[in-house]
Amino acid sequence: MSISNSQATPGAMAGVLPITPDFEDWPVHHQAVGVSTDGNVVSVTWDDGRVSRYHAVWLRDNATDPGSLNPVTREQERPPWSYPADLTARHVQINASGAVIVSFEPEGEDIPYHPGWLRGVDYSGGHRDDLAAEAAIPWIASDLTAAPAIDGPGFLDDDQCTLGALETLARRGLVKLEGTATAEGTVQRYAERIGTIRNSNFGLLFDVVTAPLASRKTANSNAYLSVELPPHTDLSTREYEPGLQLLHCRRNTTVGGNAVYVDGFAVAEEIRRRDADLWRAITEIPWTFTNRSTATDYRWRSPLVVLDTEGNPSEVRMTTFLRGPLNVPFEAVELAYAGLRAFQELANSERFRLTFAYQPGDLMIFDNRRILHGRGAFDEAIGDRALQGCYMEREEVLSRIRILRRNLATGSRSG
Amino acid sequence: MSISNSQATPGAMAGVLPITPDFEDWPVHHQAVGVSTDGNVVSVTWDDGRVSRYHAVWLRDNATDPGSLNPVTREQERPPWSYPADLTARHVQINASGAVIVSFEPEGEDIPYHPGWLRGVDYSGGHRDDLAAEAAIPWIASDLTAAPAIDGPGFLDDDQCTLGALETLARRGLVKLEGTATAEGTVQRYAERIGTIRNSNFGLLFDVVTAPLASRKTANSNAYLSVELPPHTDLSTREYEPGLQLLHCRRNTTVGGNAVYVDGFAVAEEIRRRDADLWRAITEIPWTFTNRSTATDYRWRSPLVVLDTEGNPSEVRMTTFLRGPLNVPFEAVELAYAGLRAFQELANSERFRLTFAYQPGDLMIFDNRRILHGRGAFDEAIGDRALQGCYMEREEVLSRIRILRRNLATGSRSG
Repeated sequence: MSISNSQATPGAMAGVLPITPDFEDWPVHHQAVGVSTDGNVVSVTWDDGRVSRYHAVWLRDNATDPGSLNPVTREQERPPWSYPADLTARHVQINASGAVIVSFEPEGEDIPYHPGWLRGVDYSGGHRDDLAAEAAIPWIASDLTAAPAIDGPGFLDDDQCTLGALETLARRGLVKLEGTATAEGTVQRYAERIGTIRNSNFGLLFDVVTAPLASRKTANSNAYLSVELPPHTDLSTREYEPGLQLLHCRRNTTVGGNAVYVDGFAVAEEIRRRDADLWRAITEIPWTFTNRSTATDYRWRSPLVVLDTEGNPSEVRMTTFLRGPLNVPFEAVELAYAGLRAFQELANSERFRLTFAYQPGDLMIFDNRRILHGRGAFDEAIGDRALQGCYMEREEVLSRIRILRRNLATGSRSG
Repeated sequence: MSISNSQATPGAMAGVLPITPDFEDWPVHHQAVGVSTDGNVVSVTWDDGRVSRYHAVWLRDNATDPGSLNPVTREQERPPWSYPADLTARHVQINASGAVIVSFEPEGEDIPYHPGWLRGVDYSGGHRDDLAAEAAIPWIASDLTAAPAIDGPGFLDDDQCTLGALETLARRGLVKLEGTATAEGTVQRYAERIGTIRNSNFGLLFDVVTAPLASRKTANSNAYLSVELPPHTDLSTREYEPGLQLLHCRRNTTVGGNAVYVDGFAVAEEIRRRDADLWRAITEIPWTFTNRSTATDYRWRSPLVVLDTEGNPSEVRMTTFLRGPLNVPFEAVELAYAGLRAFQELANSERFRLTFAYQPGDLMIFDNRRILHGRGAFDEAIGDRALQGCYMEREEVLSRIRILRRNLATGSRSG
């Protein structure tokens, strides 16, 4: 049983605290010991001396009484523009349960706030990171060649195992599960352990099986042939390149066709350190990615490396075999090619390229906007090779990490 | 039959032109009449006097001979970094079919280029718009109240009707089809006429049917209740807010619950004209959107209006009932609320708000990152109301427009 909403701490009196505006756990580590209001701003002094300040308009918007917040969905029913523009917090007090009660004018209602939540979301000391995610840790091949294997089956039913694997995925951009079942559709069970699968014109699941000779004349991707696929990201032709890919090896008795994985962020950073012109080439000159098909015509225009607002790599677009003709000012053409060459020479070097033979039961999960993947050419006359994969978004990983942490924390306090 | 690859134009001699690097139509409107090379750059003079220049590295990369481009997938097999760094175009000529033949050193191969394609992708005069899309045309309610109905069934099988509807959708951000079937699953047929459906935690299709009393205690969205939904976008909690939504009315005998649609870009532009502080509020101050659930915890942080690189609105994030507590510097809080209020007061005004009662068979298709949708509260004791919907991406519309135009153009030249 979770005790966060009924925790007995020194100074709290009997009583039931109000609900919070979400399903998160907000344990009460500190009690409000003093409160005041100047009408626009409510001040709360906590038992450790900290003073938090909240605007009246902010407090009213975050009310959790049944008229303001739907108690089932915990979504707001009263939008903030429905409150009077001259709203003020007339009075504030602490009740017997430790809740902070604010009385608003002109509507006259008294709204209670959960102290654990109120302290947790305090914004008066500056921005609080409410999207906290694992920070990306760049890697080169030697960092990962001795990485411990993650137990495939454990990922499906052991929350601690799943959480550990997803944290590795968030930091490193990839994780390799071993010993999974090799049945068709297995990848879907693993994907749905994380969240929702992203559909595409290749289907909910796609089979990377060399096309039988009979159907080879209609293959709609080089992936379905036996040719080498240089390190690349998938679906760079879409506005939203998938944030996540799963690739599951079901069978592999071919000669060649080794897996290749490269940290695109690490390669980009290496270019930044080495050469300002090449850095400009890969981060500023847009390529046009186009899918070639009679049924679809997706196009997207983007530099090879997209930067976030702080100027750091946030996305790699690198499907070199889906590039339409480069279409930039005449003077930029040779630099654009030099940037692509520099990136790929590093990506294909021993230092950056993690390579191994897929074993049946291997399941790779990787950030498709950071990690490039590829394969060597193989001889389709010898042996058999079957991968099955699917796409997802990064947010599914972050959501699952939060839910697992929430559940594990609740479980650890349960009786 | 398409005649683009065998078109007999004055000056062309007999012969078969090489394939192009894609499945587009590249009719030969102009013949190459003179060619030269300085090693790095090939110049082509056309029969109208225009001179186009192409870099050797660019030409080699766009070769369509079977060793360079896979003739089935039309995806590159030889990446550009595999060519010698000292590549030069040694010699150039025009052959009997009108193709431009370039001889490269040091590898010594002769590569033919299709003149229709070569002229079409000429980049030497500056950037060519190879992503050309319909430009967005902002609207207010009075622009659309008398808009002609689009025939629902025609959308499914008449290419010209589909193309017209999708062009309207691209320009206006929404289109209303009327007279569609009301069977469960109908929306999927219409969606798949455009492209791939985007899955979500609400399912491939979602049913907006008021939750029966028995299950109302587990509703995971206000949409499944009978409360008013102020104008909003869907799934603002995701990194990639869906670019498209379909909503299909299957039954509606309720009192109230009128549909509301608003052009969020038009509202944003109105605020830009009126007030610089409020413009800053809606375009710079981030809100945190969070889904409230025991099963998922999606979060995204974004201003209400996201601008493109030219400073114009490209995305609206406006699910006011999915806002987590505002988490910005103390000084920005009141301005943030003022911006939200100003936006919603306009969105809810007669000028901007298109409103109507859903008729069974109505099917709305709209840009979920531009158009806000909502509904009035309704009395769930009277009548019955069933909508079914799904999500897609903007790129599916653009891809379908390109394919329909390609097919209609080919058909119009067929014998």
